Amino acid sequence: MLVAQSGGPTSVINASVAGVIQEAGKHGLIEEIYGGLNGIYGILNEELIDLNEEKARTIEGLKYTPGAALGTCRYKIDSKKKPEQAAKDMDRLFEVFQAHNIRYFFYAGGNDSQDTSNQIHQEAVKRNYEMRVIGVPKTIDNDLPHTDHTPGFGSAAKYVATTVAEVAIDVGGMATDEGACCIIEIMGRTAGWLSASAVLARKNGVGAPHIILLPELPFNEEQFLAKVKETVDANKFCVVVVGEGIKNAAGEELGADKSRLDAFGHPVLSGAADRLAELVQGKLNTKTRTVKLGYAQRAAAHLASLRDIEEAVMCGEAAVRAAVEGRSGFMVKLVRTSSDPYHCATDLQDLSDIANAVHHIPRDWISEDGFLPNEKFIEYCKPLIEGETKLAYEGGLPKYAVLDKVPVDKTLPARA
Amino acid sequence: MLVAQSGGPTSVINASVAGVIQEAGKHGLIEEIYGGLNGIYGILNEELIDLNEEKARTIEGLKYTPGAALGTCRYKIDSKKKPEQAAKDMDRLFEVFQAHNIRYFFYAGGNDSQDTSNQIHQEAVKRNYEMRVIGVPKTIDNDLPHTDHTPGFGSAAKYVATTVAEVAIDVGGMATDEGACCIIEIMGRTAGWLSASAVLARKNGVGAPHIILLPELPFNEEQFLAKVKETVDANKFCVVVVGEGIKNAAGEELGADKSRLDAFGHPVLSGAADRLAELVQGKLNTKTRTVKLGYAQRAAAHLASLRDIEEAVMCGEAAVRAAVEGRSGFMVKLVRTSSDPYHCATDLQDLSDIANAVHHIPRDWISEDGFLPNEKFIEYCKPLIEGETKLAYEGGLPKYAVLDKVPVDKTLPARA
Repeated sequence: MLVAQSGGPTSVINASVAGVIQEAGKHGLIEEIYGGLNGIYGILNEELIDLNEEKARTIEGLKYTPGAALGTCRYKIDSKKKPEQAAKDMDRLFEVFQAHNIRYFFYAGGNDSQDTSNQIHQEAVKRNYEMRVIGVPKTIDNDLPHTDHTPGFGSAAKYVATTVAEVAIDVGGMATDEGACCIIEIMGRTAGWLSASAVLARKNGVGAPHIILLPELPFNEEQFLAKVKETVDANKFCVVVVGEGIKNAAGEELGADKSRLDAFGHPVLSGAADRLAELVQGKLNTKTRTVKLGYAQRAAAHLASLRDIEEAVMCGEAAVRAAVEGRSGFMVKLVRTSSDPYHCATDLQDLSDIANAVHHIPRDWISEDGFLPNEKFIEYCKPLIEGETKLAYEGGLPKYAVLDKVPVDKTLPARA
Repeated sequence: MLVAQSGGPTSVINASVAGVIQEAGKHGLIEEIYGGLNGIYGILNEELIDLNEEKARTIEGLKYTPGAALGTCRYKIDSKKKPEQAAKDMDRLFEVFQAHNIRYFFYAGGNDSQDTSNQIHQEAVKRNYEMRVIGVPKTIDNDLPHTDHTPGFGSAAKYVATTVAEVAIDVGGMATDEGACCIIEIMGRTAGWLSASAVLARKNGVGAPHIILLPELPFNEEQFLAKVKETVDANKFCVVVVGEGIKNAAGEELGADKSRLDAFGHPVLSGAADRLAELVQGKLNTKTRTVKLGYAQRAAAHLASLRDIEEAVMCGEAAVRAAVEGRSGFMVKLVRTSSDPYHCATDLQDLSDIANAVHHIPRDWISEDGFLPNEKFIEYCKPLIEGETKLAYEGGLPKYAVLDKVPVDKTLPARA
């Protein structure tokens, strides 16, 4: 079997890999447990490692270690835009699979990565190459359809809610008659789940953050400034959380620099908070500071949610069980049966239902004025941040696992 | 007695207040324990609270609670630039002190606040008003002279080192042949102590962060870009930490918007990371992302250093003991006698030695090329981030203490 990781890491993407490895170890059918370095990109270069060479302690430690321990990539097999390169890549991938007798392939990733898994699954069927392909969900954005939520989201949400709560205490303590505003920019290209999770920082439904701007709703400058002014007048301070991808009524992103595109052709976003700060400072003359947590949101394993870790492991395990049972072309999904008490189980969803679709926050989970997620969102999100990680510290810093990465001998000529 | 807080909060400024309150409770000489809301600004408005009305549990909880629980301010008694207003403010302050028989005044703050304490002390002597004034050090910037370090720095350093370590793991895992760069902007107006603390994220002196740009040294664009290129060529990625206040050889701040000044007349800084990102992206064509932790650095009590908490409490206690012993016009300072094993005790320093002076990182604590703090800095900084906070969690979020703030009856007419 082969496991690999793709796309932006999360705090718990390694926990899913640990789940895959530990579950695979239980099944005699699986002879070798290989990891692909840097996702598809490394597999194309036949860069595989032997995960059975790793210490059990290291694999267990992966559950609490951020980043992609196997390495990840943003490389895309683009059969639509680059059909020639895609066909070449597919040939090469199956050469690698065949050379190492890979019969199980597990790929942890978000929307784009599930699309890759789907293509590989279909290609295996077409080529009559017997291989079971199961996708493992992963994204802090929580924007995959058909799953209640995605591993990675709960930990990022816990980090965002904690940080916003702490910054709000700080700004609130500094607020004097002149007023103060702080704008915190949160990741999430088109879906506002992570920004919305900041609402959990509010105590009993009051206080900061006072405004959460979601990419799901068009930004209205006038209403926003009125709400900031009203909040500062009433509380002497205002904490605003903004999703990096918010757009105005014309659909233009506030913080987009349209000259830059990432490997998937999406515009690179940044600067929504800075743009809003200029507005508040300029039009309301209120002292405004910004915070842009950036990659820290998906890497802050020191604040991972224990529930998220456990579910990430569960998804990895479920992927292996499904494959061993003969299933292929599915993504593991989470199905919630109850929020209080919280209960969630895994199931499977056809990969073709997942790829490149985006799951947004329902409109009726957001207050009428659009400035805060409501009780429905809170009920949904609250259980996902529960429980604290069991991370060990050494010399004052978290102790993270590092793989030895013993390479599997290459048997193919280098990639053309 | 009266205790108040001033300037930007830290994760442990409340721990010092807890130390003051708990120690004051032991001394029969002190009849009432009052807190001034929003520092000098609130005291001028006779906004005092009765801290004996708070639960012991709340006071203990303050040790783990970020922000300024009493509120803080940036109001300055400026006897040089605004002598008339300053004289009026002093009259009013002593009216308030007299009205409530304040004979002990403890003020927790940074450079500017120690200056305020010094003015109040001198004014008390001049007016023959018997009052003991002791300053309690506090700043994440660690830039106060005569003290080995300042409470608040260790916790911020632990947060910065942890976050940089996590982001570095994230970026390192994503690095493929195209290379990646991440630039993390750290607070610190003129002193680079907090930026430098990111060096603790390096494992055994290697790895990320690869470059730390300190405000102590002039920024050299050419050398910086060469170092980034060299690092990306060797490692496929580069993590840069930059102090918000770095300047070029001409002394101009890279990220300063000179049109904005804060209440103390300092330029408002922001954007050093964004400026560097433009450079790296533009000149090296390396994909670059930025992180700006902002207020989170001084509010992240969930990652507070236990040693810092204990020393902050110790400074509060020492302030009360000094005052009860009849001392006035001093700031509590920390004196280190050994780094390994770490040993540190409190002592007193004349307030006039502290006010408005800035303590920089010695040049010989920084590598010759200026891109990393060296072993001397590491030996100094390492013990300060040791130990984890004892913070309790509830529903997945840290449980912070909130004061009831029972007001002391006003006896004076409103401030003119």
